[in-house]
Amino acid sequence: MTALTSVAPGLQPAVGSRPVRFEVTVAPPPDGTTRARTGRLETTHGVVETPAFMPVGTNATVKAMDPDDLVEVGAQIILANTYHLYLRPGHERIARLGGLHAFMAWPRPILTDSGGFQVVSLAGLREIDDDGATFRSHLDGSTHRFTPELSIAVQEALGPDIAVAFDQPVPPHASTRSEVAEATLRTHRWAERSLAAHARRDQALFGIIQGGLDADLRAASTEAIAALPFDGLCIGGLAGDETAAQRAAALEVVVPLLAHDPRPRYLMGLGSPADMLEAIHQGVDLFDSVLPARVARNGTLWVPGGHLNLRNARFLDDGAPVQDDCRCRLCRGFSRAYLAHLFRADELLAYRLATCHNLTFTLDFMARARREIRAGTFPAYRRASASDPNPDDRSRPRSSDTQAGAKGG
Amino acid sequence: MTALTSVAPGLQPAVGSRPVRFEVTVAPPPDGTTRARTGRLETTHGVVETPAFMPVGTNATVKAMDPDDLVEVGAQIILANTYHLYLRPGHERIARLGGLHAFMAWPRPILTDSGGFQVVSLAGLREIDDDGATFRSHLDGSTHRFTPELSIAVQEALGPDIAVAFDQPVPPHASTRSEVAEATLRTHRWAERSLAAHARRDQALFGIIQGGLDADLRAASTEAIAALPFDGLCIGGLAGDETAAQRAAALEVVVPLLAHDPRPRYLMGLGSPADMLEAIHQGVDLFDSVLPARVARNGTLWVPGGHLNLRNARFLDDGAPVQDDCRCRLCRGFSRAYLAHLFRADELLAYRLATCHNLTFTLDFMARARREIRAGTFPAYRRASASDPNPDDRSRPRSSDTQAGAKGG
Repeated sequence: MTALTSVAPGLQPAVGSRPVRFEVTVAPPPDGTTRARTGRLETTHGVVETPAFMPVGTNATVKAMDPDDLVEVGAQIILANTYHLYLRPGHERIARLGGLHAFMAWPRPILTDSGGFQVVSLAGLREIDDDGATFRSHLDGSTHRFTPELSIAVQEALGPDIAVAFDQPVPPHASTRSEVAEATLRTHRWAERSLAAHARRDQALFGIIQGGLDADLRAASTEAIAALPFDGLCIGGLAGDETAAQRAAALEVVVPLLAHDPRPRYLMGLGSPADMLEAIHQGVDLFDSVLPARVARNGTLWVPGGHLNLRNARFLDDGAPVQDDCRCRLCRGFSRAYLAHLFRADELLAYRLATCHNLTFTLDFMARARREIRAGTFPAYRRASASDPNPDDRSRPRSSDTQAGAKGG
Repeated sequence: MTALTSVAPGLQPAVGSRPVRFEVTVAPPPDGTTRARTGRLETTHGVVETPAFMPVGTNATVKAMDPDDLVEVGAQIILANTYHLYLRPGHERIARLGGLHAFMAWPRPILTDSGGFQVVSLAGLREIDDDGATFRSHLDGSTHRFTPELSIAVQEALGPDIAVAFDQPVPPHASTRSEVAEATLRTHRWAERSLAAHARRDQALFGIIQGGLDADLRAASTEAIAALPFDGLCIGGLAGDETAAQRAAALEVVVPLLAHDPRPRYLMGLGSPADMLEAIHQGVDLFDSVLPARVARNGTLWVPGGHLNLRNARFLDDGAPVQDDCRCRLCRGFSRAYLAHLFRADELLAYRLATCHNLTFTLDFMARARREIRAGTFPAYRRASASDPNPDDRSRPRSSDTQAGAKGG
């Protein structure tokens, strides 16, 4: 274990040498009406106000967006995928070119995942043993092996502000209890090895809680990971094929066990505003998902109360903006009719404009949640949104659609 | 013939009611070293300093660019394609939505072509008779008929600043002399019908000179079209499969006949800086081509003296910008290595950044030409560039590659 990770959980964040500092700025109310809280996560490349949503830049680019677009939509931090960048263009190449921030010209914070999710999602292409995971590249079929140590080395080379321990996520419904238990215990051993391998003093390391949907396994994993000196705690193995009730039950196990833990809580892979609203209520601070951008590229534009499918012919004559009061690049300048035309003509501008809108929608939703928490009105806001701020089933996360799998974002 | 087109050629441009005014601001020197000149074309939506290059927005979007990008690269005016917009989304729809400027949120001047080039390029899908051209849509195979009257009606509905008469271009090497003569005479009759049909007083109408590569046919066409009260004169049927020497010979016929004509001269479809430099020298004021953007999307980036093929693996480790002194969005923020990675990963951002660069390169080249003309140094500049400012054969116009054919830009 390195000096970098020598602060035990339960202590207040130390000042100075820590690569990240997290401070809860508005704690949940003592009346227990909500566990929603605001926080401030200081990283090497800037501050993230939480609750926060991280757009996903699988291949060192959030698809169709440039860094100015990301600043304009309000991204405070983005996520990049270790698995994808390891395969192409290669982490050592990115390191030689000055690291991920310089490579993609993104000056704000970056978090990389560990590659565990992508490796495990390569069904039929991988074998997992106690030491690591052997897999075949989805790009060219070449064989590779990830271990906790390699995952950390790759992330240290990439140079994000926040790295994540290598884990073995298990989709809950796809697994028996013994499979979940085995993957969870392996995740704990890999967490310790990830910590031991991690040496970059300017980079934080988050651990991942697994445990599936069994309350006892989820609780044991929470305690095991929280006992380790990570800088933040990821909640993995959700945002998959579980129901909203199952996800809520899992969070009801995890978050109370972390009630006095000073570290940020990051629910990996959740991206629907309606789902995130519930998770914020349950005490989650950080989110990521490819969902808003992926559905945008498919022509689904999120609006208050639902969505518009811009591939529908009825929009070809609709001169209104996608959303009247939206500040985004699409809604400021263009009509539904124009965007519908661009999608029909398969014009590249369609993908960028639609992504600008859905990411603005998502990030404005998070900003609204922070304001409501600060004002003490979050419980009322949540009740008022009970009918769902964005209840479209087709735009809700489904299975592994919400995370950048091996095929990318 | 309408009031709009009642000014005879040879007169000075009238003030006030004309939809465009063209003024030669620096005339060619009396020593005959060059016919290069600068001009100022005033349109309903603003001024175009000539010589000028028009990026092509086939489907009411310059591929991968938004209007802010176009302003940033320095586009003064863009071209949109009548044929494509007639088929999709439909000119009447665009008219109902407020016209092309509002539809695509482009506040500066627009020129539309007449559809003639696209209709004629639909080999095997069209029949041409004296009244018009019957063709099958490249989108769905449906049958349509363009006449001069319909082409003008479509362009009046679209609402560009400048419309163009319907013509029958003939690729020189593909045609016998009698075919060229027949198409040229038909183009003259269609020019008169286009003028008679054109009624929008806020829209200019340009005529098209044809005549192939035979000096007598080209001269006859120049005289026939220049005798009609168009607001500008297009030089068609070039930028095709002719050699540079053949093109120069054709311009050597056309431009001297227009020496005292006050109207702008627009060579349709030429887009390589080296070729445009020669055409400017021969007295051309306006250009358009899909070339800079099309080769950009294919990974070919123009730089002084040649080009870089960003799909070449050697750029994956090249931390330098594509062009050191370039002001474009790509070169300001990103390395060759990053762009090469984006192309390999087929990331949408690659197409936008590469297009930003090649259009900036092309438009900066035109700005340089204007400066040299104003300074009286254009002949020396041209000689110094004799080795070719951008001599890459693979990025030079080839056949109909330079114009947005029926398949789009």
